[in-house]
Order: sequence, then C-alpha cells, then structure tokens
Amino acid sequence: MDRFIVTYRIVADDDADARARAQAIALEDTVEIPPDTVPNGYIKDTIVGRVDDVSAIGAGVWIAKIGYHIDAVGRELPQLLNVILGNASILQGVKAIDLTPNADLRARFSGARFGVDGLRKLTGRTQGGYVCPVIKPQGSSAETLAQLCYLTAAAGADIIKEDHGLANQDAAPFKERVRACAAAVARANQERAGRGDPSRALYFANIGGHSDQVRDLAYYAKDAGASGVLLIPGLFGFDAMNRLAQDPDFGLPIMAHPSHLGPYVLSPDHGYGHGMLFGQLMRLAGADISVFPNFGGRFGFSQSECLEIVKSCKTGDGIGPSILPSPGGGMSIDRLPDMLANYGQDCVYLLGGSLLRFGTDIGDAIRDMRTALSAEPNG
Amino acid sequence: MDRFIVTYRIVADDDADARARAQAIALEDTVEIPPDTVPNGYIKDTIVGRVDDVSAIGAGVWIAKIGYHIDAVGRELPQLLNVILGNASILQGVKAIDLTPNADLRARFSGARFGVDGLRKLTGRTQGGYVCPVIKPQGSSAETLAQLCYLTAAAGADIIKEDHGLANQDAAPFKERVRACAAAVARANQERAGRGDPSRALYFANIGGHSDQVRDLAYYAKDAGASGVLLIPGLFGFDAMNRLAQDPDFGLPIMAHPSHLGPYVLSPDHGYGHGMLFGQLMRLAGADISVFPNFGGRFGFSQSECLEIVKSCKTGDGIGPSILPSPGGGMSIDRLPDMLANYGQDCVYLLGGSLLRFGTDIGDAIRDMRTALSAEPNG
Repeated sequence: MDRFIVTYRIVADDDADARARAQAIALEDTVEIPPDTVPNGYIKDTIVGRVDDVSAIGAGVWIAKIGYHIDAVGRELPQLLNVILGNASILQGVKAIDLTPNADLRARFSGARFGVDGLRKLTGRTQGGYVCPVIKPQGSSAETLAQLCYLTAAAGADIIKEDHGLANQDAAPFKERVRACAAAVARANQERAGRGDPSRALYFANIGGHSDQVRDLAYYAKDAGASGVLLIPGLFGFDAMNRLAQDPDFGLPIMAHPSHLGPYVLSPDHGYGHGMLFGQLMRLAGADISVFPNFGGRFGFSQSECLEIVKSCKTGDGIGPSILPSPGGGMSIDRLPDMLANYGQDCVYLLGGSLLRFGTDIGDAIRDMRTALSAEPNG
Repeated sequence: MDRFIVTYRIVADDDADARARAQAIALEDTVEIPPDTVPNGYIKDTIVGRVDDVSAIGAGVWIAKIGYHIDAVGRELPQLLNVILGNASILQGVKAIDLTPNADLRARFSGARFGVDGLRKLTGRTQGGYVCPVIKPQGSSAETLAQLCYLTAAAGADIIKEDHGLANQDAAPFKERVRACAAAVARANQERAGRGDPSRALYFANIGGHSDQVRDLAYYAKDAGASGVLLIPGLFGFDAMNRLAQDPDFGLPIMAHPSHLGPYVLSPDHGYGHGMLFGQLMRLAGADISVFPNFGGRFGFSQSECLEIVKSCKTGDGIGPSILPSPGGGMSIDRLPDMLANYGQDCVYLLGGSLLRFGTDIGDAIRDMRTALSAEPNG
C-alpha cells in the first residue's frame, strides 16, 4: 500500500456533490490550490491526495476514503495532522472517522512505548482493572496533595494521576508539588513492598507549564521520582506527547488527558470520530493511557461512543501496541462492576472528586475499588 | 475587578437548569470536584469560578458570565485555556463566546508585539490594504518556491506568506526552503529600494517541524532573513505562539494560521465564538495577524462571523494592541474591492492558489492587487 488512508464522513447534496467534496478535501489538505493549477508529475501523482472511494451510507451522508502519500507529510506529526484534517477541519460537514496506516506511516510514527503489556510490567499487577485515584483540587498545598498521594498509594492504588488542572499555580508550584508527591508515593511503595505486595503505585505528574518546557518538566518529574506523566494534547499539541514517547532517554509512560478536545468529537458533522481521536490518534501520538469521559457521568458521550474508543485503543491493526483506555468524569465506586463488564481488565478506572468525600478514610475507598476491579472477568 | 470574565452560551432546559450548568462549568474548569467537597477558605473563595450572571437570550439558550481568579491560572497560557474551556469543552451545549480581561490577566498576557501600528512601520506602507500572496504548492522545490517569492515581492507584495502545508518535506526541507525564500525576497527588496519604493516585502516563513523545535526553527528563519513567521496554534498550541511573541530577543511579527481549528467554531453549541477564537484568543496568544477563511470562498463562515472576527481583532478593549485580520481561502482579485469595503485598509488580503494561474506573469496579478487595495477608503 503506497498510501495511508483517511476515511471521512461527508455531508453532501447528492452523489456528484459528495465526489466533488472528497476531491476538494484531497486538494485542500495537501497542495491547497485549484485543480487546474496542480503541476503535472510528482505533485499531481504523489503529493495530492487520491480519492479511492465515495459511497453513500444514508440520507445526505457519504463515506469517502482518501489515500495520502507520506511525502506530503514528512517526518513530523503536526504536518501529518495537517494532511489528515488541517484545513478540512474548517470545511462544513467533513469529519475524519478512521485512519488506516501503511508501512510508511508506521515507520515514521511508532506509537506508544509501553501500552497494555508494558503497564502490566510497570505496575506489577498481572490482572485486574487498574485503580486510579485523581489527586485534587488545585488550590491545595503541595503537602495536602502529597498526603492524598500517600494515602491512596498505600491503600493499593495502581496509578496516582494528578488532576489536569494542577499546573504551576502559586498554591503548589509544579516542582515543589511533584517532589512532594513523588516522595509520598515512594514511601507508600516501600510500605507495600514491606508487606509483600508484588504491585506498586505509579505516580503520573501533570505537566503544567509552558509548551516549550514540556521536555524539561517531564525530565524534572522523572528525576524527582515520577513514574509517568500526564499531558494534555489539546493544549500542548499531539506532537509534544509524541516527542516524549519517542525519546528513548525519557522512557516513562504517558497518560493523555482530553481537556480542550471536546469540540473535535461533539458534533457529528465536524472533527474526528470518537475512536479515531481518543484511540487511533492517541496511539499514533504515543499515549500509553487515553483518558476519556465515561457515559453516564458529567459528560455526554454515549455508551457506544465509549466502546468505540476502547476498541480503537486495543485493536491489533492500529499504530504501535494496544493502549489502555481510561474512563472517568463523575464516576463512583458503585458503578465499577458495570464499567468492568463493559471495558474489561485492561483499563484504567479513574475516580476523582467523589473520593474526597471519604476524607482521611480515602484508603478504604481505594481498597473497595481494588476489590471491585479484581473480580473475575465476565466477558 | 478581581476576576476576568468568560461569557458562555449555554443550551439548557429551563432557567434552573441553566444556572446549574453555569455552576457546573465554574467547578469543572477550576477544581473539578463536587460542590460538597470544595474546601472552605481560599479554594472556595478564590480558586472556584464565580457565576456572575445567567440570562435567557432565546428559546433554550442562556448566556452565563463566569469570573475566574488569576490564581486558578498561574502564569502559563495552557492552564488559562484549561480554565476558560478545558473540560467544559467536552460538556454538551457549552460555547465560550467572550473574554473580558482584568488587570491581572493583562499583566500576565500582554498580547501582540507589533499589531496594526507595528506592521505599518515594518512594511513601510502608510496606508492601503496589505497585498499577501501565498507561496505554494508543497511538493515544489525550494528554488521554485523562492522564485515565486521573488516575483511577488518584486512586484510590490507587502507580505509573502508561505503555505501552511510547507512543513519540512523532502521536496523542500524547511531550512533549505527558508534560506532560498528569504534570499529571494531580500533581492526583490533591494530592487524596490533601488527604484525608490519606500515599502518592502516581509517574508513570513511557515514553522514546519516538531513542536519542541518551534523556537529553534523560528530563530533559524530569523537568522536566514525572514521578517516574520507563520505558526499553526491548532497544531503547535497557542502557547507556542505566545512564547515567541513574548520573547524580546526574537522580536519578529507572527501570523497565526487557522488549520485544525475548524471544529472549535463550526458548531453553535460547542467550542468558541468566531470573534473569541480568531480575535480575542489570537491577540491573547500574541498573533500580529490572524488568518481566517473569508465568506464566499471554499469555507462556510458567514459574513457576520467574519465581521465579528475583524471587530475582535481591532477592538480597543482587547488584550494588547489591535491586530490585523487576514481573510483568505479561495479569494480572487475581482473580489478585493468588496473585501476592502468590508474589512478596511488595516487588513492582510490573502491570495493563494488562483495566483498560480498567472504563471510567470504573477507580478501583474500582484500589481493589480495593490491597485485594488490602494483605492480610497470608502468607510
């Protein structure tokens, strides 16, 4: 296959209009010039996108498959996104819903460093869904946040995720906070090891700072003892994440947070499909764990949209290894059995604000979560 | 004013629902915990967003004003966007449509370095709309692209903008291309000076590369002789642009390209208002010129949406100096008089693919553009 394929959902008037729109996307996202001005030879034959198929799938809706050559991309992820949906993101009624990689794309974008199997090794949990408390709220001191890290880690949490709003505010500046939280998790892990627990808590520090400091802050977190980082591709860009993922010296897992990405999926007519954004593109950009808002919480994703995300995180034909989906957003312990039945064990189960209701008994809640997520798989 | 204000358009069932949704946004974008778990004191009083007003504006639609304290932000732009629309971007029926800065916000985010007045000085054009050809297509050699730069600059172009798809592909790698194009524009400017032209062409190099190389690539372009840079905040992040804008050593104007940002404005129910994204946020992030798709071209913005963008670029109560709007996307010379009447002289008029039809006579098209855009202002 000399091209990778992007599948678009296109709103059109009729079959001819749909074909014209597909051809317009193929030009728009590559050369961005009128068809009569495209130079013959290399540019027309290789650089311009190639419309492979346009098929009606319902009233007023078509599916178009467009093949792009790696030469239109180069080696950098920002330009890959330009080709997939750059200017076409501004066209009415155009939504990218699927990416079929070819060998060229896989050679330049290798995906996650750890993924599902890697996280099993890092956590020391051979089975069971992952217990993931979210440390918050912002405005708390580093000491208060570190104490939450300690209590949840000591009680058996697998992944300690910082809230994505813990940035670099005066109440708990990034470096002070990360040092304190990493030390607290290390202390809890020593206690766990002392009582023979073969698993350990991983502390994921949220990268809060300027976009040109992502690498420095991630290395700071690593040196301070963090086991991974949380990053927001909707604010720092997908390539910021990929650069960390592809840096062999860094070598820590990455959790992607969906903040600021909502408009890319909320409309049926624009942006990306849920599975493409939170599964395929997160894998492409090197996320090991992809956070998304679960159905039935504060956000409006449907169950089928969530299952599409999970499938795209795990399917064998994606970029790089399978990665872990991580549903959250207004969940509670009593929903965990239902979530486990939907998502399975290879999943990071987030629990945030509602944990704070337990106060200093938060460890009990973590133990309850672990019990619920260690139940025999039922499917 | 102890808080900056974000105005949201909220879809709701009734007045009580609208108020509850506004309160939910105020929590979601700051502490992200249930109201009963918010600690008293500093966090409740200062960090949590404050709902100032909720008013119905039509059937099923409310306007909510929420005040946020700078302490919830810190000093970095990614966290500011988290507060303005981070997780709330994923909520159904929530759109941010206006930003009212306060002194705290202005102190930490100073806006564009040049803006409208600065560009008049840099170009040496004291009046008239700016003639801005777009150099393309990708797949062309650096030599071919540089020749287009030379021909358009020599004929009187004000700003030579590279296509945003000229990244770092093998056909014309970034450094080779920028060196060649900057040299071509410099040669044309020498000729213009030689014939007594008081104005000069500015060459804006498109930053194509990895997100952690933005600063290095921008400095490379500067050292090679570029007069400005084009950057895509939808791919590199708004803070990448702001970091360049706030770097006194860099000191070149910045043009922002809208690629990949479409989904933030295309739905009435999600994302940002047109003026907020392409005017207010671009100013906040330090763009001197904000590119947007003009009505009547290939994209679906309406005339009123375009005028809202222009107003937000120029209004006196925004962040930093007024900046230049830059409409494009399928324009032609015969539409320029109409565009001039709509947008005025302080505007960068883009013309891209259709210029290629002129071939080696492209200079004639540039002269025609300059004539059309030098007409007496009519309003």
